[in-house]
Amino acid sequence: MDKAFLDDLTPGQVFTSEARAVVDAGWIKRFAGEFDPQPFHLDESLEVTMQLLVQTLPLSEGVIGSGVDELRWPRPVKPGDTLRVQCEVIDVTPSKLHPSRGTVRMRMTTLNQNDQPVQTMIANLLAFRRPEQVA
Amino acid sequence: MDKAFLDDLTPGQVFTSEARAVVDAGWIKRFAGEFDPQPFHLDESLEVTMQLLVQTLPLSEGVIGSGVDELRWPRPVKPGDTLRVQCEVIDVTPSKLHPSRGTVRMRMTTLNQNDQPVQTMIANLLAFRRPEQVA
Repeated sequence: MDKAFLDDLTPGQVFTSEARAVVDAGWIKRFAGEFDPQPFHLDESLEVTMQLLVQTLPLSEGVIGSGVDELRWPRPVKPGDTLRVQCEVIDVTPSKLHPSRGTVRMRMTTLNQNDQPVQTMIANLLAFRRPEQVA
Repeated sequence: MDKAFLDDLTPGQVFTSEARAVVDAGWIKRFAGEFDPQPFHLDESLEVTMQLLVQTLPLSEGVIGSGVDELRWPRPVKPGDTLRVQCEVIDVTPSKLHPSRGTVRMRMTTLNQNDQPVQTMIANLLAFRRPEQVA
Protein backbone atom coordinates (compact mmCIF):
# COMPACT_ATOMS: atom_id res chain seq x y z
CA MET A 1 0.00 0.00 0.00
CA ASP A 2 1.21 3.49 -0.83
CA LYS A 3 -0.05 6.27 1.38
CA ALA A 4 -3.15 5.20 3.30
CA PHE A 5 -6.04 7.56 3.81
CA LEU A 6 -9.04 7.19 6.11
CA ASP A 7 -10.97 5.86 3.10
CA ASP A 8 -8.51 2.94 2.71
CA LEU A 9 -8.89 1.59 6.25
CA THR A 10 -11.43 -1.02 7.34
CA PRO A 11 -11.96 -2.90 10.62
CA GLY A 12 -10.06 -6.19 10.67
CA GLN A 13 -7.22 -4.91 8.47
CA VAL A 14 -3.81 -5.86 9.92
CA PHE A 15 -0.44 -4.17 9.43
CA THR A 16 2.70 -6.03 10.53
CA SER A 17 6.14 -4.44 10.77
CA GLU A 18 8.62 -5.82 8.26
CA ALA A 19 11.49 -4.45 10.28
CA ARG A 20 12.27 -6.06 13.60
CA ALA A 21 14.10 -4.17 16.31
CA VAL A 22 16.78 -5.96 18.29
CA VAL A 23 16.84 -4.54 21.81
CA ASP A 24 20.32 -3.43 22.66
CA ALA A 25 21.54 -3.32 26.29
CA GLY A 26 23.52 -0.11 25.76
CA TRP A 27 20.53 1.55 24.20
CA ILE A 28 18.32 0.60 27.16
CA LYS A 29 20.95 1.88 29.55
CA ARG A 30 21.37 5.19 27.72
CA PHE A 31 17.62 5.66 27.55
CA ALA A 32 17.20 4.76 31.20
CA GLY A 33 20.00 7.05 32.35
CA GLU A 34 18.66 10.08 30.59
CA PHE A 35 14.92 9.68 30.88
CA ASP A 36 14.03 7.27 33.65
CA PRO A 37 16.61 6.96 36.39
CA GLN A 38 15.27 3.90 38.20
CA PRO A 39 15.54 0.12 38.14
CA PHE A 40 12.41 -0.73 36.15
CA HIS A 41 12.38 0.38 32.52
CA LEU A 42 9.14 -0.19 30.68
CA ASP A 43 9.26 2.82 28.42
CA GLU A 44 11.72 1.40 25.92
CA SER A 45 9.12 -0.99 24.53
CA LEU A 46 6.84 2.01 23.92
CA GLU A 47 9.65 3.74 22.04
CA VAL A 48 10.62 0.72 19.97
CA THR A 49 6.94 0.30 19.13
CA MET A 50 6.72 3.93 18.01
CA GLN A 51 9.75 3.50 15.79
CA LEU A 52 8.35 0.34 14.18
CA LEU A 53 4.92 1.94 13.78
CA VAL A 54 6.34 4.87 11.87
CA GLN A 55 7.91 2.38 9.43
CA THR A 56 4.83 0.13 9.26
CA LEU A 57 1.69 2.24 9.14
CA PRO A 58 1.42 3.99 5.79
CA LEU A 59 -0.81 6.81 7.07
CA SER A 60 -0.58 9.79 4.76
CA GLU A 61 0.62 12.28 7.39
CA GLY A 62 2.49 9.91 9.71
CA VAL A 63 1.48 8.35 13.01
CA ILE A 64 -0.30 11.08 14.95
CA GLY A 65 -1.81 9.80 18.19
CA SER A 66 -4.64 11.59 19.93
CA GLY A 67 -4.86 9.13 22.80
CA VAL A 68 -3.98 5.69 24.15
CA ASP A 69 -6.13 3.31 26.19
CA GLU A 70 -5.44 0.05 27.97
CA LEU A 71 -1.66 0.29 27.74
CA ARG A 72 -0.22 -2.86 29.36
CA TRP A 73 3.15 -4.59 29.61
CA PRO A 74 2.36 -8.29 30.00
CA ARG A 75 6.03 -9.34 29.85
CA PRO A 76 9.36 -7.55 30.36
CA VAL A 77 11.60 -6.62 27.42
CA LYS A 78 15.16 -7.93 27.78
CA PRO A 79 18.39 -6.99 26.03
CA GLY A 80 18.71 -9.14 22.91
CA ASP A 81 14.95 -9.46 22.39
CA THR A 82 13.75 -8.96 18.83
CA LEU A 83 10.54 -6.96 18.65
CA ARG A 84 7.94 -6.49 15.95
CA VAL A 85 4.60 -4.76 15.90
CA GLN A 86 1.15 -5.80 14.73
CA CYS A 87 -1.67 -3.26 14.33
CA GLU A 88 -5.28 -4.18 13.71
CA VAL A 89 -7.87 -1.62 12.68
CA ILE A 90 -10.78 -1.77 15.13
CA ASP A 91 -12.82 1.18 14.04
CA VAL A 92 -12.78 4.04 11.52
CA THR A 93 -14.76 7.19 12.35
CA PRO A 94 -14.91 10.23 10.05
CA SER A 95 -14.91 13.52 11.95
CA LYS A 96 -18.22 15.40 11.96
CA LEU A 97 -16.48 18.68 12.68
CA HIS A 98 -13.61 18.35 10.17
CA PRO A 99 -14.72 16.64 6.93
CA SER A 100 -11.10 16.21 5.79
CA ARG A 101 -10.16 13.82 8.58
CA GLY A 102 -11.20 11.19 11.09
CA THR A 103 -10.05 8.79 13.77
CA VAL A 104 -8.73 5.24 13.38
CA ARG A 105 -8.87 3.11 16.49
CA MET A 106 -6.19 0.39 16.38
CA ARG A 107 -5.12 -2.46 18.61
CA MET A 108 -1.31 -2.41 18.71
CA THR A 109 0.62 -5.42 19.90
CA THR A 110 4.39 -5.54 20.29
CA LEU A 111 5.64 -9.14 20.13
CA ASN A 112 9.01 -10.61 21.05
CA GLN A 113 10.91 -13.29 19.11
CA ASN A 114 8.76 -16.00 20.74
CA ASP A 115 5.55 -14.31 19.54
CA GLN A 116 4.72 -13.31 23.12
CA PRO A 117 3.14 -9.87 23.61
CA VAL A 118 5.38 -7.52 25.60
CA GLN A 119 3.14 -4.48 25.13
CA THR A 120 -0.49 -4.03 24.13
CA MET A 121 -2.55 -0.88 23.71
CA ILE A 122 -5.47 0.62 21.89
CA ALA A 123 -4.48 3.82 20.12
CA ASN A 124 -6.58 6.52 18.52
CA LEU A 125 -4.80 7.87 15.47
CA LEU A 126 -5.57 10.79 13.23
CA ALA A 127 -6.10 9.92 9.55
CA PHE A 128 -6.94 12.14 6.61
CA ARG A 129 -9.50 11.57 3.87
CA ARG A 130 -8.41 11.33 0.26
CA PRO A 131 -8.44 14.93 -0.99
CA GLU A 132 -10.69 13.96 -3.94
CA GLN A 133 -13.30 12.51 -1.52
CA VAL A 134 -13.67 15.75 0.38
CA ALA A 135 -16.33 18.06 -1.04
CA MET B 1 6.58 11.87 53.75
CA ASP B 2 9.43 9.37 53.84
CA LYS B 3 8.94 6.15 51.95
CA ALA B 4 5.26 5.58 51.22
CA PHE B 5 3.75 2.12 51.48
CA LEU B 6 0.35 0.91 50.31
CA ASP B 7 -0.90 1.45 53.88
CA ASP B 8 -0.04 5.20 53.68
CA LEU B 9 -2.11 5.95 50.57
CA THR B 10 -5.75 7.03 50.57
CA PRO B 11 -8.10 8.22 47.81
CA GLY B 12 -8.01 12.00 47.40
CA GLN B 13 -4.37 12.30 48.47
CA VAL B 14 -2.43 14.57 46.08
CA PHE B 15 1.32 14.63 45.31
CA THR B 16 2.72 17.60 43.42
CA SER B 17 6.23 17.73 41.96
CA GLU B 18 8.49 20.25 43.64
CA ALA B 19 10.84 20.16 40.69
CA ARG B 20 9.69 21.69 37.43
CA ALA B 21 11.18 20.61 34.16
CA VAL B 22 11.98 23.25 31.55
CA VAL B 23 11.52 21.73 28.11
CA ASP B 24 14.67 22.24 26.09
CA ALA B 25 14.55 22.38 22.28
CA GLY B 26 17.82 20.46 21.90
CA TRP B 27 16.57 17.76 24.21
CA ILE B 28 13.35 17.38 22.21
CA LYS B 29 15.37 17.22 19.01
CA ARG B 30 17.77 14.61 20.35
CA PHE B 31 14.90 12.54 21.68
CA ALA B 32 12.97 12.88 18.45
CA GLY B 33 15.97 11.99 16.28
CA GLU B 34 16.77 8.83 18.15
CA PHE B 35 13.37 7.49 19.09
CA ASP B 36 10.68 9.02 16.94
CA PRO B 37 11.79 10.25 13.53
CA GLN B 38 8.71 12.21 12.51
CA PRO B 39 7.29 15.71 12.78
CA PHE B 40 4.92 15.18 15.73
CA HIS B 41 6.57 14.46 19.07
CA LEU B 42 4.22 13.65 21.89
CA ASP B 43 6.42 11.19 23.75
CA GLU B 44 8.63 13.78 25.41
CA SER B 45 5.83 14.88 27.73
CA LEU B 46 5.46 11.23 28.81
CA GLU B 47 9.19 11.10 29.55
CA VAL B 48 9.31 14.39 31.42
CA THR B 49 6.32 13.18 33.42
CA MET B 50 8.12 9.95 34.28
CA GLN B 51 11.18 11.86 35.41
CA LEU B 52 9.10 14.18 37.64
CA LEU B 53 7.10 11.25 39.00
CA VAL B 54 10.21 9.43 40.11
CA GLN B 55 11.19 12.54 42.10
CA THR B 56 7.68 13.18 43.43
CA LEU B 57 6.05 9.90 44.38
CA PRO B 58 7.71 8.49 47.49
CA LEU B 59 6.69 4.87 46.78
CA SER B 60 8.99 2.51 48.66
CA GLU B 61 10.26 0.63 45.60
CA GLY B 62 9.98 3.40 42.99
CA VAL B 63 7.37 4.07 40.34
CA ILE B 64 6.48 0.68 38.86
CA GLY B 65 3.61 0.89 36.40
CA SER B 66 1.49 -2.11 35.52
CA GLY B 67 -0.73 -0.25 33.08
CA VAL B 68 -1.98 3.08 31.80
CA ASP B 69 -5.50 4.09 30.76
CA GLU B 70 -6.98 7.16 29.10
CA LEU B 71 -3.65 8.66 28.09
CA ARG B 72 -4.38 11.97 26.34
CA TRP B 73 -2.43 15.03 25.16
CA PRO B 74 -4.88 17.93 25.32
CA ARG B 75 -2.23 20.52 24.37
CA PRO B 76 1.19 20.38 22.67
CA VAL B 77 4.41 20.81 24.65
CA LYS B 78 6.68 23.53 23.28
CA PRO B 79 10.37 24.29 23.81
CA GLY B 80 10.66 26.59 26.82
CA ASP B 81 7.56 25.23 28.55
CA THR B 82 7.92 24.52 32.25
CA LEU B 83 6.20 21.32 33.29
CA ARG B 84 5.12 19.97 36.63
CA VAL B 85 3.13 16.91 37.63
CA GLN B 86 0.16 16.38 39.94
CA CYS B 87 -0.90 12.89 41.02
CA GLU B 88 -4.12 12.13 42.84
CA VAL B 89 -4.79 8.77 44.45
CA ILE B 90 -8.07 7.40 43.08
CA ASP B 91 -8.10 3.92 44.53
CA VAL B 92 -5.96 1.60 46.68
CA THR B 93 -6.45 -2.16 46.29
CA PRO B 94 -4.46 -4.74 48.26
CA SER B 95 -3.59 -7.84 46.21
CA LYS B 96 -5.48 -11.00 47.11
CA LEU B 97 -2.79 -13.20 45.60
CA HIS B 98 0.26 -11.40 47.06
CA PRO B 99 -0.39 -10.13 50.63
CA SER B 100 2.80 -8.04 50.55
CA ARG B 101 1.60 -5.70 47.81
CA GLY B 102 -1.28 -4.02 46.00
CA THR B 103 -2.27 -1.58 43.29
CA VAL B 104 -2.64 2.21 43.52
CA ARG B 105 -4.72 3.80 40.81
CA MET B 106 -3.69 7.45 40.25
CA ARG B 107 -4.79 10.28 38.03
CA MET B 108 -1.64 11.93 36.70
CA THR B 109 -1.77 15.39 35.19
CA THR B 110 1.19 17.15 33.61
CA LEU B 111 0.68 20.93 33.64
CA ASN B 112 2.52 23.69 31.80
CA GLN B 113 3.53 27.08 33.24
CA ASN B 114 -0.02 28.40 32.61
CA ASP B 115 -1.55 25.54 34.64
CA GLN B 116 -2.95 24.00 31.46
CA PRO B 117 -2.88 20.20 31.24
CA VAL B 118 -0.59 18.95 28.44
CA GLN B 119 -0.94 15.29 29.37
CA THR B 120 -3.44 13.32 31.45
CA MET B 121 -3.60 9.63 32.26
CA ILE B 122 -4.77 7.11 34.80
CA ALA B 123 -1.93 4.86 35.90
CA ASN B 124 -1.94 1.63 37.88
CA LEU B 125 1.13 1.48 40.07
CA LEU B 126 2.53 -1.30 42.19
CA ALA B 127 2.88 -0.46 45.91
CA PHE B 128 4.15 -2.59 48.76
CA ARG B 129 2.65 -3.03 52.22
CA ARG B 130 4.62 -2.04 55.28
CA PRO B 131 6.63 -5.16 56.17
CA GLU B 132 5.28 -5.06 59.76
CA GLN B 133 1.68 -5.13 58.43
CA VAL B 134 2.22 -8.34 56.50
CA ALA B 135 1.54 -11.49 58.53
